[in-house]
Amino acid sequence: MRALVLSAGMGTRFRSERSKVMYPILGKPMLWYVLRALKEVNFLETALVVGYRAEEIKDYFGQAYLYFHQSNPKGGTGDAVLSAIEFWRDYQDYLLVVNGDSPLIKPHTIRNMQKYLHLVQEHEGIKLSALLLSAQLPDPTGYGRIVKDQEGNVVKVVEEKEATPEEKLIKEVNGGLYLFYCPHLLEALFKVKPSPKTGEVYLTEVFQLMHQTGYKVRSFVAEDSSEILGVNTRWDMAVVENLIRLRILQEWAEKGNTIHQPESVWIEPEVVLEGEVEVFSNAMLRGSTRLGRGVVVGKGSIVENGTVEDGAIIEPYSVVKNSFIKAGAVVGPFAHVREGSIVGKNSHVGNFVEVKKSSLGKDVKAKHLSYIGDASIEDEVNVGAGVVFANFDGKRKHQSSVGKGAFIGSNSLLVAPIKIGSYSFVAGGSVITKDVPDGDLVITRPKLRIIKDKGREKLLD
Amino acid sequence: MRALVLSAGMGTRFRSERSKVMYPILGKPMLWYVLRALKEVNFLETALVVGYRAEEIKDYFGQAYLYFHQSNPKGGTGDAVLSAIEFWRDYQDYLLVVNGDSPLIKPHTIRNMQKYLHLVQEHEGIKLSALLLSAQLPDPTGYGRIVKDQEGNVVKVVEEKEATPEEKLIKEVNGGLYLFYCPHLLEALFKVKPSPKTGEVYLTEVFQLMHQTGYKVRSFVAEDSSEILGVNTRWDMAVVENLIRLRILQEWAEKGNTIHQPESVWIEPEVVLEGEVEVFSNAMLRGSTRLGRGVVVGKGSIVENGTVEDGAIIEPYSVVKNSFIKAGAVVGPFAHVREGSIVGKNSHVGNFVEVKKSSLGKDVKAKHLSYIGDASIEDEVNVGAGVVFANFDGKRKHQSSVGKGAFIGSNSLLVAPIKIGSYSFVAGGSVITKDVPDGDLVITRPKLRIIKDKGREKLLD
Amino acid sequence: MRALVLSAGMGTRFRSERSKVMYPILGKPMLWYVLRALKEVNFLETALVVGYRAEEIKDYFGQAYLYFHQSNPKGGTGDAVLSAIEFWRDYQDYLLVVNGDSPLIKPHTIRNMQKYLHLVQEHEGIKLSALLLSAQLPDPTGYGRIVKDQEGNVVKVVEEKEATPEEKLIKEVNGGLYLFYCPHLLEALFKVKPSPKTGEVYLTEVFQLMHQTGYKVRSFVAEDSSEILGVNTRWDMAVVENLIRLRILQEWAEKGNTIHQPESVWIEPEVVLEGEVEVFSNAMLRGSTRLGRGVVVGKGSIVENGTVEDGAIIEPYSVVKNSFIKAGAVVGPFAHVREGSIVGKNSHVGNFVEVKKSSLGKDVKAKHLSYIGDASIEDEVNVGAGVVFANFDGKRKHQSSVGKGAFIGSNSLLVAPIKIGSYSFVAGGSVITKDVPDGDLVITRPKLRIIKDKGREKLLD
Repeated sequence: MRALVLSAGMGTRFRSERSKVMYPILGKPMLWYVLRALKEVNFLETALVVGYRAEEIKDYFGQAYLYFHQSNPKGGTGDAVLSAIEFWRDYQDYLLVVNGDSPLIKPHTIRNMQKYLHLVQEHEGIKLSALLLSAQLPDPTGYGRIVKDQEGNVVKVVEEKEATPEEKLIKEVNGGLYLFYCPHLLEALFKVKPSPKTGEVYLTEVFQLMHQTGYKVRSFVAEDSSEILGVNTRWDMAVVENLIRLRILQEWAEKGNTIHQPESVWIEPEVVLEGEVEVFSNAMLRGSTRLGRGVVVGKGSIVENGTVEDGAIIEPYSVVKNSFIKAGAVVGPFAHVREGSIVGKNSHVGNFVEVKKSSLGKDVKAKHLSYIGDASIEDEVNVGAGVVFANFDGKRKHQSSVGKGAFIGSNSLLVAPIKIGSYSFVAGGSVITKDVPDGDLVITRPKLRIIKDKGREKLLD
Repeated sequence: MRALVLSAGMGTRFRSERSKVMYPILGKPMLWYVLRALKEVNFLETALVVGYRAEEIKDYFGQAYLYFHQSNPKGGTGDAVLSAIEFWRDYQDYLLVVNGDSPLIKPHTIRNMQKYLHLVQEHEGIKLSALLLSAQLPDPTGYGRIVKDQEGNVVKVVEEKEATPEEKLIKEVNGGLYLFYCPHLLEALFKVKPSPKTGEVYLTEVFQLMHQTGYKVRSFVAEDSSEILGVNTRWDMAVVENLIRLRILQEWAEKGNTIHQPESVWIEPEVVLEGEVEVFSNAMLRGSTRLGRGVVVGKGSIVENGTVEDGAIIEPYSVVKNSFIKAGAVVGPFAHVREGSIVGKNSHVGNFVEVKKSSLGKDVKAKHLSYIGDASIEDEVNVGAGVVFANFDGKRKHQSSVGKGAFIGSNSLLVAPIKIGSYSFVAGGSVITKDVPDGDLVITRPKLRIIKDKGREKLLD
Repeated sequence: MRALVLSAGMGTRFRSERSKVMYPILGKPMLWYVLRALKEVNFLETALVVGYRAEEIKDYFGQAYLYFHQSNPKGGTGDAVLSAIEFWRDYQDYLLVVNGDSPLIKPHTIRNMQKYLHLVQEHEGIKLSALLLSAQLPDPTGYGRIVKDQEGNVVKVVEEKEATPEEKLIKEVNGGLYLFYCPHLLEALFKVKPSPKTGEVYLTEVFQLMHQTGYKVRSFVAEDSSEILGVNTRWDMAVVENLIRLRILQEWAEKGNTIHQPESVWIEPEVVLEGEVEVFSNAMLRGSTRLGRGVVVGKGSIVENGTVEDGAIIEPYSVVKNSFIKAGAVVGPFAHVREGSIVGKNSHVGNFVEVKKSSLGKDVKAKHLSYIGDASIEDEVNVGAGVVFANFDGKRKHQSSVGKGAFIGSNSLLVAPIKIGSYSFVAGGSVITKDVPDGDLVITRPKLRIIKDKGREKLLD
């Protein structure tokens, strides 16, 4: 079976200057979810009909797909399918057609529809011309209604605005995903005339034509009616994003992770939780993040493309990006570990500390108000409060290194490029501009002067 | 048509020492929402009945309204309307009466009620004595039920506790908003007797009296039954605040802005989003904030009375207050831009940086751990990590200025009042107490001393 | 009446290495909620059946309970009750049996069930053998159904998988909480045979046996059907945690506190709000926290075991732990007040400030980027931006003290142990290593050198 995804639309109601199907849902384009579902079902070939902002789509999804161009942006869904006629004209099998703005579709449902086709063929000896995904909605307003005859065959699909009062009472609605038998689709689609009102060729017109020819069309009711939700407005997108989010969260919870206030938590689809992870409210796990067993992610923390090993703790309101947090480390609260950093085993990066492109060894402490940039820090180093690794000289960035067991006193400044030796001691408040040998103490400190009664004078007089 | 808002109540169940209707919903008093709806409908005159904590209300809403005082705080709604009798006794038209604790009322609904009055007069030749807003509730428990005769006229409104078992089955309930024909209201209201139980005069008693006199009373069912929700407890307030919040969010989404996890986002009613804005979860936009096209507000950030120009990015967990963020600037994560600040075009205020009453020109970088207070910074200045503008000398605040392209080395201290020239260079760790001419380098740095083996001694012995 | 809590299960579907009933819900083990409900009802004695990870449970709950050990971890609920046979064999009264994974049970419901037993005995002259808590569910799938005879007596409880199609239509389901008349329980339970499929002895088998003996069993429908929810998976746990959370929030709102976006707020069960508290979204109040009248907790702030006196304000994104915030103080935004600290009356701890094991007197200001550790600070002290109390020398921690009215200039470093006198003045950027007498000024400042044109050279050439 082949699959065709309609993603040429402009998304007028979406009020966008970009392609609607490229808008991100949990960090991935809406269309990505549709294509992922198709990939899981394992179609022979998948093609996309593109039009509006086609390049954006092709750049993102690349060579794995065939692309067909719909030249008339207002041609309608039937015209879109015709645009890809090379893809299916000579195909003597079924073609799945789905809208690119239906990211809730489940592979499971598509497989069940495929099975249904086989069953009908086997047991009833009928080759269905089309099988439509449908849903039973308590309030079908706005959806195309599925009109059936007494044997349950689909007679036609009528849009809301063209439905008679009786048809409006029908609660089974069109889900926008179809399996078409290509020879019959070809026959019917050529007969569809553009709507006199809008000039669009509606794909859904084929069902009535098929029925009139004597072909059989059936509908297949989705188990979960939310699956058919499409995204027309940004509000729809928010609703759909929430539904996808909850699916992901429930899955991780059922695999043995604790998620508090799941409605507030954001986990993107490629994140992995290895078990016994505890995630507090408003945590946001993005990209290719991977959390080891027993990891705790505190309230509101953000991990993007991070690897966090077993038992590490991300305290509340920390941001970790493109970095590696090793087993047993503690990050935060209010810590910012930026791109290309490593926080070593059992190390602690504390509040108001920024780490950028730096590696920290084991048992390093940098607990307060520091900036560690472009540095390589060995095991057991203690970085005091207010320490700054001055990596920028106004023109370019430089590297620093700190040897094992060194102590960097508070409020001191290490001016890169610099090398601080093992077990060396940087006295508090110093500005270090020379390399420090192993085991030495380094200090820059002016004479302390006490001026009698001058304090009281400045403050009270 | 005139409007009368009842806002004299004590809100006993609200357990408050202040006036209930003055409690904030999304930063505005509950009563503000009622008055805004009336303003949109464009009433001739609007009056408020005040009593408990009257001054608080009058101070806030000022001279745009007439105020009438209800002297008996436990007089009841009928007594409240009587307290304003000067306002409507001689008025030969309709008077809208609404409770000040009904902030969900929509102007649209009021307009529809007005149209209904006209239609009835035109087509049925009847002048209704009263038209009540009502709602159909699946569970009407706790609400006054609307009892009607066979022609659909309102016979009376019965409170829950006085309803017969049959009346309790009625699902149409009183919405607490009425249009009264003043001459008939006058006639009926004078006949109402105080409740023997509570001593209160209930306004809803007039409907039965009107009916008995042969006058016609009708009800008007709200499209959206949530509209009639009143606020009796703080829990009600939380529920109502959420509903108003979602209305605002849906509106901004449908105008072409992306809002993730909208249930978590807080946007106050006077905020403006200019389109293609992307708002992440837990963002909070307050007061008169205005966000330009393409602005991104990261997770959890708070903007209060801020202007953020096109394409600027507020990274997660930043707070911006009474400030101006220019196009393309980046603020945060973990930045705090306080009152009266400007962050210039393409400038970057980074993590753990506080900016207060300061202006930053174009392309300024202040990316780490700094305090910039009472300063004026020209274009292309680089402020290192740990820099402090010392604006306070123990008695008063002073100003600083930094010229174009200057470099302020990390951990240095600029003691205000001070003037740092253009393209000057402040060496890291310096304490600057004198003005620095353009192009010069300034440094305060003690001699660096290395003491052999002293580090190892302090750390390991 | 005695109570028996079944908490021996392994929680296979929970996918845990720990005891399921010990997993925290709002910071307390699931089982704690069950035991608290029983404590409020005031049972004579309460016993727990433990098995899997028994020590964890006994360590936490201690000597207030009797413990019985179920040796067969797969023995089933009937076997669990038999494991505690010493507890109830000779008891001639009722025994409450409840699962330890049912944390939503309300004391109110248990009391009503007890009253019902009395009423039946008094008015019908019957001693019920068992009274089951039940619920009416629109969708009973997955629950045991309660089969009754025409007089309303329970005939049996059938599990989903053994129910006939007719039985599956029953909407009244077993709530997993029972009051048993011990002599009848003894008689019936010994007759129950292990399930041929699973080898487990099911407690629910006793009802059919009781009915067959001619004993009477009734069910008692919970007012709120959520009460019977048990926790089988982590997703269930998230759902149950949310329900408990909302109960707590609604209670505090109704007592006169304002809670914005309550669905986002986390208040643990032992926290106290004294009234007129205003809590913004995502606030998290943990442990034994107590908030005085009029306290404001800003968006996202976390208070754990904190005492916050009347009128104090916790600004957004602050973390307060095991500390005391006195009346009128302001903490935050972005402040971190750690263990054992006191922030005095009207003091202000501002952004990016960490306070650890320190006490601040009245009217202290520490508003920017500071680390205050192991310090005792008297009234009216001003701590500048970037100040660090260097409490660690590489080996041990030391104390500091600052006298009344002292001024600590920005970016200065106080090297502990140290004593700064009253009304003394520490000049900005100083490193203080000696005690400073009252009223004096102290300074360490190298000579300032200006090097002509060197800045321009470094930056532009």
